[in-house]
Amino acid sequence: MPVNLNVPSAESLHPVAGVDMGYAMAQIRKPNRKDVLVVSLSEGASVAGVFTKNRFCAAPVQVCQAHLQAGKGIRALVVNTGCANAGTGERGLADARATTAKVAELLGLSPEQVLVFSTGVILENLPMDRLLLGIDQAVAGLGKANWLDAATAIMTTDTLPKATSRKVKVGQGDITLSGVSKGAGMIRPNMATMLGFLCTDARIAPPVLDRWTKACADASFNRITIDGDTSTNDSFVIMATGQSAAVNIQTGDEPEASVVFQALREASIELAQAIVRDGEGATKFITIEVEEAGNEDEALKVAYAIGHSPLVKTAFFASDPNLGRILAAVGYAGIDDLDQTKIQLYLGDVYVAKNGGRHPDYREEQGQAVMNQSEITVRVLLGRGKARTTVWTTDFSHEYVSINADYRS
Amino acid sequence: MPVNLNVPSAESLHPVAGVDMGYAMAQIRKPNRKDVLVVSLSEGASVAGVFTKNRFCAAPVQVCQAHLQAGKGIRALVVNTGCANAGTGERGLADARATTAKVAELLGLSPEQVLVFSTGVILENLPMDRLLLGIDQAVAGLGKANWLDAATAIMTTDTLPKATSRKVKVGQGDITLSGVSKGAGMIRPNMATMLGFLCTDARIAPPVLDRWTKACADASFNRITIDGDTSTNDSFVIMATGQSAAVNIQTGDEPEASVVFQALREASIELAQAIVRDGEGATKFITIEVEEAGNEDEALKVAYAIGHSPLVKTAFFASDPNLGRILAAVGYAGIDDLDQTKIQLYLGDVYVAKNGGRHPDYREEQGQAVMNQSEITVRVLLGRGKARTTVWTTDFSHEYVSINADYRS
Repeated sequence: MPVNLNVPSAESLHPVAGVDMGYAMAQIRKPNRKDVLVVSLSEGASVAGVFTKNRFCAAPVQVCQAHLQAGKGIRALVVNTGCANAGTGERGLADARATTAKVAELLGLSPEQVLVFSTGVILENLPMDRLLLGIDQAVAGLGKANWLDAATAIMTTDTLPKATSRKVKVGQGDITLSGVSKGAGMIRPNMATMLGFLCTDARIAPPVLDRWTKACADASFNRITIDGDTSTNDSFVIMATGQSAAVNIQTGDEPEASVVFQALREASIELAQAIVRDGEGATKFITIEVEEAGNEDEALKVAYAIGHSPLVKTAFFASDPNLGRILAAVGYAGIDDLDQTKIQLYLGDVYVAKNGGRHPDYREEQGQAVMNQSEITVRVLLGRGKARTTVWTTDFSHEYVSINADYRS
Repeated sequence: MPVNLNVPSAESLHPVAGVDMGYAMAQIRKPNRKDVLVVSLSEGASVAGVFTKNRFCAAPVQVCQAHLQAGKGIRALVVNTGCANAGTGERGLADARATTAKVAELLGLSPEQVLVFSTGVILENLPMDRLLLGIDQAVAGLGKANWLDAATAIMTTDTLPKATSRKVKVGQGDITLSGVSKGAGMIRPNMATMLGFLCTDARIAPPVLDRWTKACADASFNRITIDGDTSTNDSFVIMATGQSAAVNIQTGDEPEASVVFQALREASIELAQAIVRDGEGATKFITIEVEEAGNEDEALKVAYAIGHSPLVKTAFFASDPNLGRILAAVGYAGIDDLDQTKIQLYLGDVYVAKNGGRHPDYREEQGQAVMNQSEITVRVLLGRGKARTTVWTTDFSHEYVSINADYRS
């Protein structure tokens, strides 16, 4: 069961002017499920993406990067689930290119104007015949976006669709932001088996959108972890159609720019957190705050050491205030000159460890009370400086093992 | 159930001249189990140790390092299970020192001649009254070492005692090596919640033994991982009593030195592998071989990325040849200029991925046949150079979650 993950109603997810969508059940891996999504964008849309840093990045990721670089103006996206088209060599690249060519042909675009995304099992080839038929269907059905359908069409082991939407007053009127994400395992900094797509009708010049997309990813999808595995296929794309007359962001220095950026950032965080809330086997939503670090890199090392520790995660699953495991993770995070006598540990509001040792007033009942909650904050102060970061993660349950032991069967 | 872990019979574990041992049931954490071990060494013994690199290293580790540095000649070791005396601040240090003082007093030594080891729960103080009574008992019972009792007395979540013993012909006669290890979780490079003690009656000068102990640890305890957690308390100590007249190693360049070193190295590997075979919830023993790396650090990064991946480990548990997860781990191991088209992957003898893509001849039945075995070798060729390494690990099972969710209850 996901942790406090609300599925928005279809009505609460606003269409975004300039964005059409279509779907298909192409039987990429399983029958009777939406597994192909085509997104069509109005002319002049700005599109920016960030992608996995995995060196084994999948064919579609390589094609996306090349097409964004080509600079012909992205006008369509095509997404399939069920097969990641990763570890597929030259044939995988040819398949990804053929996929973009098919969409381009149907929409009257050049292939370089199409981005392609795949998620699912690695080391298997795409069933191109079924995928191309699915694209025909999806394009034939293109219409005003139904974001809940879009969220459903990109799911793999997700138990619930993930979407967010908001209207923001800015400048002369309103802008709309709507987005979807998917992912439940193989989630880790520098993206994950996650896909995130966020659209707005605001006008945002490409260089600004590039910068903002990286900043939004760093504040959201690059701050979540479920199992420490970085996927081959992670992609996060922000699209700005410019159909709203409310704002025109050309430099990012406009007075209304910060409102638009904050709205994008908050939507990104909501989409990223939704992935953690639906993390494979998750029973707890854990926020890890690391403060007083010498720099952000240190803070991240410590946060991820805690967030990746199977021992810490199983203790959360058991609601066991076995908090020494957190200190052990801090100790092996890779800060060579860490002074354990300067470290403070809080669980929720409870002061657990003072100057590296058990706080004399700490009683296990206090830790137990926090551990029993479904949303828990761990706060570590390193006593080294002023840098800080926040990372979101889950616990580690029997269900996680079951899901990943049975994923393909 | 441990994976192919044989418990040696008490008779097959040879006493080592110059080593006496005593035990106690001190009820450190649980009743009716041996939980205190005292080892007494003959005068003139050489002792060398390597310890956890965790910056939250426990009080006993800090005391051991200081006492080895003092150079007064180590003559005794005291080990307790049930409480790690880690995250215990100044009081923990005082307790560890009081423990060595107690042993020293009973044996007529100075405290600096005593090493102290603790393993168990972190963030709790030692029950000093019970521990000191236990030391009285253990010292009163000192006698010729029963290595199986020693192996049992240092267990925590271990399901079986781990010991090894051998006699080696060298120089003018025989030398004897016997040792024990413990550890089943929180196991990771740079030691683990693991303790390893290896004794020989060979004479080995302290500087040589220092060097050899580091080399043995690097070939054994620093090449195993169960869950990626590095403990606060890991320690590996080699003791050479010099009671055998067979060899006298003063420089390490003696003709018989390599035989002695190889015997120590093999015993260390056996003790380390025993920990993996008894890894928490282990159902498989996995050997990860990384070859053609640019340097050893690269090889280790890749081996540990594979060995720590929960997705890879759950696939092993399920005997699921979902081998793309291995390629994904190679890709995120942190080699920035990795070229995926140069990577070969073998599972056992089966050639799975060629030049980064699925090998055209690979059939899933072949991968399945290897996956069904209890001992599996993964071999990755990086195509970057000549460095290589080997790491041993386990799969990730429901049982792992159960053990670590219930450890303290």
